[in-house]
Formats: sequence, C-alpha cells, structure tokens
Amino acid sequence: MMRCLMAILGVALPMAAQVRWEQIRNAAQMPGNWLTFSGNTLGHRHSALTQLNKANAASIKPLWTYQIDKTDKFEASPVVVSGIMYVSEPPSDVTALEARTGRPLWRYRRVLPDGVRVCCGRVNRGVAVLGDKVYVATLDAHLVALDALTGNVAWDVEAAPYKSGNSMTVAPLAVKDKIVVGIAGGEFGIRGFLDAYDAKTGKRAWRFWTVPARGEPGTQTWEGDSYKYGSAATWVTGTYDPELNLVYWGTGNPGPDWNGETRTGDNLYSDSVIALDADTGKLKWYFQFTPHDIHDWDSTQVPVLVDLPFGGKPRKLMLFANRNAFYYVLDRVTGEYLLGKQYVRQTWAQASLDAKGRPTRLPNTEPTEKGTLVYPNSPGATNFYAPSYSPMTKLFYVNTRDEGGVFYSRRDEYKEGSWFLAGRFISKPGEEAKGAVKALEPATGNVKWEFPMYSPSWSGVLTTAGGLVFAGAHEGDFFALDDTTGKLLWRFPTGGRIFANPVSYLSEGMQQVAIAAGHAVFAFGLEGER
Amino acid sequence: MMRCLMAILGVALPMAAQVRWEQIRNAAQMPGNWLTFSGNTLGHRHSALTQLNKANAASIKPLWTYQIDKTDKFEASPVVVSGIMYVSEPPSDVTALEARTGRPLWRYRRVLPDGVRVCCGRVNRGVAVLGDKVYVATLDAHLVALDALTGNVAWDVEAAPYKSGNSMTVAPLAVKDKIVVGIAGGEFGIRGFLDAYDAKTGKRAWRFWTVPARGEPGTQTWEGDSYKYGSAATWVTGTYDPELNLVYWGTGNPGPDWNGETRTGDNLYSDSVIALDADTGKLKWYFQFTPHDIHDWDSTQVPVLVDLPFGGKPRKLMLFANRNAFYYVLDRVTGEYLLGKQYVRQTWAQASLDAKGRPTRLPNTEPTEKGTLVYPNSPGATNFYAPSYSPMTKLFYVNTRDEGGVFYSRRDEYKEGSWFLAGRFISKPGEEAKGAVKALEPATGNVKWEFPMYSPSWSGVLTTAGGLVFAGAHEGDFFALDDTTGKLLWRFPTGGRIFANPVSYLSEGMQQVAIAAGHAVFAFGLEGER
Repeated sequence: MMRCLMAILGVALPMAAQVRWEQIRNAAQMPGNWLTFSGNTLGHRHSALTQLNKANAASIKPLWTYQIDKTDKFEASPVVVSGIMYVSEPPSDVTALEARTGRPLWRYRRVLPDGVRVCCGRVNRGVAVLGDKVYVATLDAHLVALDALTGNVAWDVEAAPYKSGNSMTVAPLAVKDKIVVGIAGGEFGIRGFLDAYDAKTGKRAWRFWTVPARGEPGTQTWEGDSYKYGSAATWVTGTYDPELNLVYWGTGNPGPDWNGETRTGDNLYSDSVIALDADTGKLKWYFQFTPHDIHDWDSTQVPVLVDLPFGGKPRKLMLFANRNAFYYVLDRVTGEYLLGKQYVRQTWAQASLDAKGRPTRLPNTEPTEKGTLVYPNSPGATNFYAPSYSPMTKLFYVNTRDEGGVFYSRRDEYKEGSWFLAGRFISKPGEEAKGAVKALEPATGNVKWEFPMYSPSWSGVLTTAGGLVFAGAHEGDFFALDDTTGKLLWRFPTGGRIFANPVSYLSEGMQQVAIAAGHAVFAFGLEGER
Repeated sequence: MMRCLMAILGVALPMAAQVRWEQIRNAAQMPGNWLTFSGNTLGHRHSALTQLNKANAASIKPLWTYQIDKTDKFEASPVVVSGIMYVSEPPSDVTALEARTGRPLWRYRRVLPDGVRVCCGRVNRGVAVLGDKVYVATLDAHLVALDALTGNVAWDVEAAPYKSGNSMTVAPLAVKDKIVVGIAGGEFGIRGFLDAYDAKTGKRAWRFWTVPARGEPGTQTWEGDSYKYGSAATWVTGTYDPELNLVYWGTGNPGPDWNGETRTGDNLYSDSVIALDADTGKLKWYFQFTPHDIHDWDSTQVPVLVDLPFGGKPRKLMLFANRNAFYYVLDRVTGEYLLGKQYVRQTWAQASLDAKGRPTRLPNTEPTEKGTLVYPNSPGATNFYAPSYSPMTKLFYVNTRDEGGVFYSRRDEYKEGSWFLAGRFISKPGEEAKGAVKALEPATGNVKWEFPMYSPSWSGVLTTAGGLVFAGAHEGDFFALDDTTGKLLWRFPTGGRIFANPVSYLSEGMQQVAIAAGHAVFAFGLEGER
C-alpha cells in the first residue's frame, strides 16, 4: 500500500455492520451484500446484480487478489457485509478483507491441537454472520463466534470431541437467533448430527442425531452395533425455508464407506436430506437418496428451494442434484418424491427410480476384494461445491463430473479416531474424466445446455441477474457463460485449482464477483478502486 | 482450461527457441524477449517496448496468474523466449509457462538432499537461457542444464559441497559460451567464489575465489586463519560488458557477519564489486565498498553499466546503489572511483567518502554485546532486488529502505556447515520503517524524485520505453509510476509479499509485464488471450 494512499484508506475504512436476521431472510432483495454461504437461505447462489452482464462480460478483469500463506485447499465461500469480506482460510482461520482492495482488516488464527483427523484436507468452507458476530466452525469441532469488527473471540464451544474423528469444515448457517452447524468425520465412524447454537451465548439449542439410537425411529435400518459408527455427517451447508420454518440439510455416507456387510439395512439417515423444525431440531421428514450406500456417495449437496409449477400446479419444491448421478425434485413441505432423473452417466442402478424415488441396484455393482467398476466414482456426479438456481431463467445449474471408479472392499474394525473405510476406490485407470456445467430444467431434469470442460471441476456455480453463469475449471480458469445458451463469454486463468464457490456483491456501488482459486481470493469486476 | 479451447491451444503451442549469444548480447534491441536476469547483460532492467505507456497505464490489467504450491518466498525473475516464460520456483524448481495463458508446459522438480543450509529462505532468483538449454542453480549448490523444450536434465554438476553451507540461489548469467554462477552461504562461513561453466558440457571453465588464499594478493587483509571462513558470497546476478569482455559481480559480507575482531583487516574481496576477464576469470580490478564490514552489508547488488558523460567527457560507468547507504559511480574500465553519495539515511560513516571512495567510520557504531543502534539496519539501504536504468530518461531507479538496526556482537567459533554469525541485529524497536522508489541522476546521485511507500519493499524495479517505472510495495501492490515525475499511474493489489523483479516482453505481439508476487506470477497487459 502506498504511503500517499493511506490517508484515503483511513477515511474510507468500512465499519463492520450489524446484520439483522431480517436482512438475511430477505437477502435476495439486498444484493449489495452476500450474507450467507449460498447468498440466501434458499440455496440459490444467485445475485440480483446486473452491472456485470452479457454485454460487458468480456471486459471483466481482476480488481485484486488476496493470497494466503498455506498450500491446503482453499474451499471458502466468502460472505460480504457492507464492503467487508469475511473469508475463512485453511485450516480454521478467518480473515476480514476490505472488499474494495482486498486489504486485510483483521485475522483470526485458530491454534489447533495435534491429533485432529480429516479425510480430505485441512479445509474450511466459510463463515456465517449474524448481529455483530462472525461464526466459524473449526477442525477441532468447535463453533467459534468472533467480533465482526475486531476478530476477537466472543465465545467458543466444543461441539464434539475431535479425538473421535469429529471435525468441522462446514460454513455455519444463521437461522433466526441460532447458528446451525454440521459435523464432518464420515471416514472415521463418527455418529453424525446437526446442531443449533444460540447465536448470542453459544449455548446449544438443539441437536439432531443423523443416526438414530436404539429405540428411536429408523434404528431398525442398522444391523447390530453398526449404528454406533454410522457416520452420516453433515459437512455441507444446508438451507432454510422461513415460511415453513424448516432447516434442510444433506447427510453423508454411512460408515464404513465401502463395505455394507456389517451394517445391513438402509442405514438411516445417511445419504439423505433431512427437514428439521428450526426451533426444536425435530425431524419433520426425510428422504433417503441412496439407501445402504456402499460407494461413498454423501448426499451433502445444497438442497435448493424454489417455488415453481410442478404437474400443473404451484409447488414448494426442493431441487437436489445428488452425488449418486440422479437429479431429484421433492415437495419440500412433505418430502414427497416428485421426480428423479439421471443427469450424469451411471451404471449402478436402473435408470428409473421407483415410485417412491428409491433406486433399484444393478447386480455386481458392489465393491469387492478384486475391484468393481462403477460409474460414477466416489467423488460422484457432483460433490460439495454449490449449484445455482436463477429466478431469471428458471434453470438449475450444476457442475457435473463423469468418471468411473473401481471400488474395492475389505473388512475394517472400528477403532475410535481411526480410518473406518472398509475399502477404497481408484478412478478408472486410463480413462479421461470429463466435466461439464449443465443447465437443467427444474421440473423435468432435462439438460437445456451443457458447457464441457477438460476435466471434472470442483468449482461451485453462481448465476446473476446480468444473465451470467460463473464457474471455474479444475485447471484454474474462472469463467462466465451465457445463462440461456451456455456460451463462453469471458474467462481468466487464475493458475490455481478451484475448490470453492463464487459470490457477488457491491463494493462502493460497483459489482464484484469473487472466488477462492488456488491459494488466493480473486475479486473481479469492471472497474477497480476509485 | 475449457475443453472447447484445447484445439486452439494445441495449435498455438509455442516451440522453445534456440537462443544465440548474439541475441543475448543485443537483447536491448530485441525487446520481445527477456533473455537474461536483468533483461540485458548490462543490468539495465529496461524494456524498449512502448505498448504500455503513460497514456494507457490506467488500463493495465492482470491477464493471468500462475500459482505455486509453496509458501517459501518467490524471488524469481522470469526469462521469456518466444512466448515461453521460464520461471524458477522455490526451492530449486523450474517451470516453463506459455506466456499467453500462464499454462505450464513442463516442470523440473529438484529433489534436494536433507541438510541443505540456507540463511534466508529456500529461494531461487531465476534461470539463464542459452542455445537450447535453461540453466538453474540449486540449493544443493549444483548447476543444472535443462532441455528448454522438455525440462529434461542435460547435465548437472556440483559446484561446491552443500554440507559445508554452500548453496545456490542466484540466477546464472550466460556469457558467450559459458554460464557464470555465484554461490551463497555467507552466514555459514563458506569460502566464496564465482564460477563459469561450459554451457554445452557443464565442465568448469574457471573459478575466481572471492577470498584470496595465503600467498595471493589481498591475503594480508585477513587475520590468521580467518580467510578460511571469509564468505564473500556471490548470490546476486552480475553483469557483463561485451566490449571490455569483463564480468562484474557483487560480493557479500565477510564471515562472521557481526563481529570483526577475529578478522582484522579489510577482508578482501568481501563487500566489493569484482571485474573479471570473462574468458579466464582473472581479476581485472576490484572496488571494495565497505572494508571490514561488521553490519552484514553484502554488496550483492546489480552493477549497472552505462555510457554517460562524467566530468565533462564520455565515460564507461558502473552505477552501484549499495546496501551500505552510499550510491557509487565507478569507471568500469579501470575500477576508478568517481562518485560516492549517501542516498538513504545512515549513521555509520562520515557523509563524505575519501578520495578513493573509502568510508570513514564514525565512532561507537560497532555491534556490541549490549547492542548499538546504526542506520541502516542489516537489510540495508537496498538489497538483492534489482535497480533499473532507463536510457530514455537517463535516470537510475532504485527501491530504497530506511530503517535503523540494533546490532549485537558475540564470539562464534567456526564449525563446518553451522551458522557463523557472531552476532545479530534487530530492527529498531518502535520505529516505523520507510521505503521509497528513488530516481537518481547517475552522474551526481541527486534524487530527482521519490515515491514513498508505507514500508520498505523487497521488489525490484523495471523501466520501459513507454515511460513507466514498475515496482511493488511490500504490502502487495504492484504499480506503475511516471518515469520523469514519480507520479502513480496504476496499481494492482496482488495480495502477496513481493520479493522479485518485474520483466517485460511480448506475447503474440502484445506487451506484458510480469512479476512474482506472493505465491504467484502475475502477467499484466492491456489485452488478454485472443
């Protein structure tokens, strides 16, 4: 920063703003901020901003970058309030940036204990904001509230013991006066849950166990003691319908991942979406996508909530592109299954789901000692990165993966805090994996267009009212597509792997789009600092 | 990279070009490439390109970034040949990038042994190119020749044993049919040298020891056995005058750094510039800037060679902004001292050098057990990063540092491969360090203008015929100044610390400026990939 500019910067320093729940609830109407993981509580990841649009997309340019001094995957989806961007960094850190310049305002550095266990990198996917606080979930399975103005710790509560393999990587979700947060650890045989904490005090308001205990409904879907290590983690941020007062959250694989012999049954509520009363955490309904999963197809995708006609009448829908290669439409009031349609190549189930949406497995698709080729592989047809719904086009956009896997099974004994996999997979040798951003018609699952990429990407998708679809390629290009045709309008080579989701917001009245790519946040727009 | 673009990329793939010595010798006349560390062998770091200029500087934007998966300091100055950028990465790796997109074409990954000793980070400052090869010096003190087209190792020679504290971080310099390369290790009591190797075979052509052995000229400047650990490393790329056939190279601190009691004498050729016959390595002349240095003021800056009037007649000059806070002008034919002028605050010597350019030390400026405050501190008034000379403005540009240090001394016994410091320094407590890019009139050392920065920067300076001065701030801004006024014309926040030098070249006919910042290379220009 040049000395001669410091005076200006001093004056222009943004103040951390109070974020009222009503603002979050109505976030779609106030697109200058990006207040939650998905932009609104409905999971749309859509910006109503139009400054960046099809006419000027070719002129988009980087405005600043913010680099981190870590080589772990940078999976954070930023949150932006009144010109301040809150971004979590690996492993469990938070930095507040001035959105105008990318300049750090404060940093929270989490000192993690030894012995934290993670399956897939020391990552974090973002923060929640509410009131005057920023909330981050940590790898040692704490939820921490930070003062939004200073980064000082307001409170810090342990959700679960990290020594048992519990960790937290999810971006929490603010719901009214609570912070909802999920757990990770599905590869260590944890018992999954979804928690809500009082935003002011950190006192736990409720917990929903995603694996029922003996005596509870659903327990009969677990053989013997297998429910004790049943996993069903909740490691990707869900959504919330304010009118129904329901929290929707996807759940992960049953444990162990690749061998179901010791857990005969459907293994509820693994690989499901659960609908919980936001005040009590009581289960309203659930829908299981992959009963008795043996391919590690966590259903930890974002449940996207839209109101659209279905079957000739308006319905409150949930759109869900699942890792198991099927796209689902559910009635989000009741959980009723409305549609299931294959959206990526798969070889594990009949192409038609049954009337309840249950898949019919094909023979000889189980993992074995010698290996079984199945499409898709364990990373699935999509994964943790976010889809988008545009109310402009009324299309659902998802970054898809097309790659087979050879699945192996073995026997693993559960041991607390240790890997509990009972198998493994390798991507199909010699095969070139494919990836594509696909635009689906919500009510039919028909693919309107697709934008093929050189390889499967781990980037989320953002749509904007300017008619743009932003996403990233695994090789590092961040790009914008025409939301009605899929035509490439712009791209920038970030030179880093992308494992994150784009967001959009205003900085001093000018639209920016930001994404974490490689080891940096890139902010893009038409015009930089004035 | 999008699948649909791959066909185009395939066709457009640049071919590694042969680099003839005549091209390097005349590099200033062929500004589409950037063929050596400093752009030409004279150390100008000036580009004759004019596409980026004062009129359009405000429209400069990043065209691509290339990120590295390392957190070490990224000190490389890229070399560019026919649209291929060769950039060294920490610790001793090389990547070839397509200058158009930043896409990697090949990578050379050096496997380093355990026990490599470095004072200041596992860094590398760049490569040399000649013929069909790329040359990199490694932390285990090898010089390695790589096939420019594939990155395959053509040859690999050990220059010195790394176990004794020898390492190589310097960008080698191609001189006719040889590769000249220096050594690092001044904090481990190595015996410094400058080497030249046959570019084709890797056979050593000559070595000049920067610390004379007993019986050789200059040996009387070392007390007792102290010459054996005399250091005088050669860790920053020097320059070459083709007409005089002289190689000029700066040398580092005498060992141990901060206590001269055991090495009474001037300690030649530490803290000097040496002029060597390029064919034989024989010493033509030397000039010592800081006799008997006790403040760690390595004279490893780039000796800048210009032909300008001095004292009323045209002279072959060397301009040298030294870490000791004095700016020097020497006759580069003879080594004659012509001018010495303080260009940054200093408190260690009288403001006037004597007639031979020798400083007169002020009393009570030696490091002591209790600490002595001296300006500048050990990083000095400038450091390893490069200055620039513009033949357009006939000004010399250097990034300067203004910070005091408290210097402590102790006794250290030399032990092979161990730290040999005999003291330490800390920056002056409570003081805000300052930094500035300064434009000096070469013949007088008068400051024409200065551009103050918030803190001292470790960025080199590039000038262009478009009238721009490119440099970076420590906080991460990369910027362009007006070369005649120092006015800020443009800046981009890279979000990373800058420890590197900018370069400029053409990619498909369009001018780019590139710099390593943080953990990425940024390429800037007006228009991206077509």
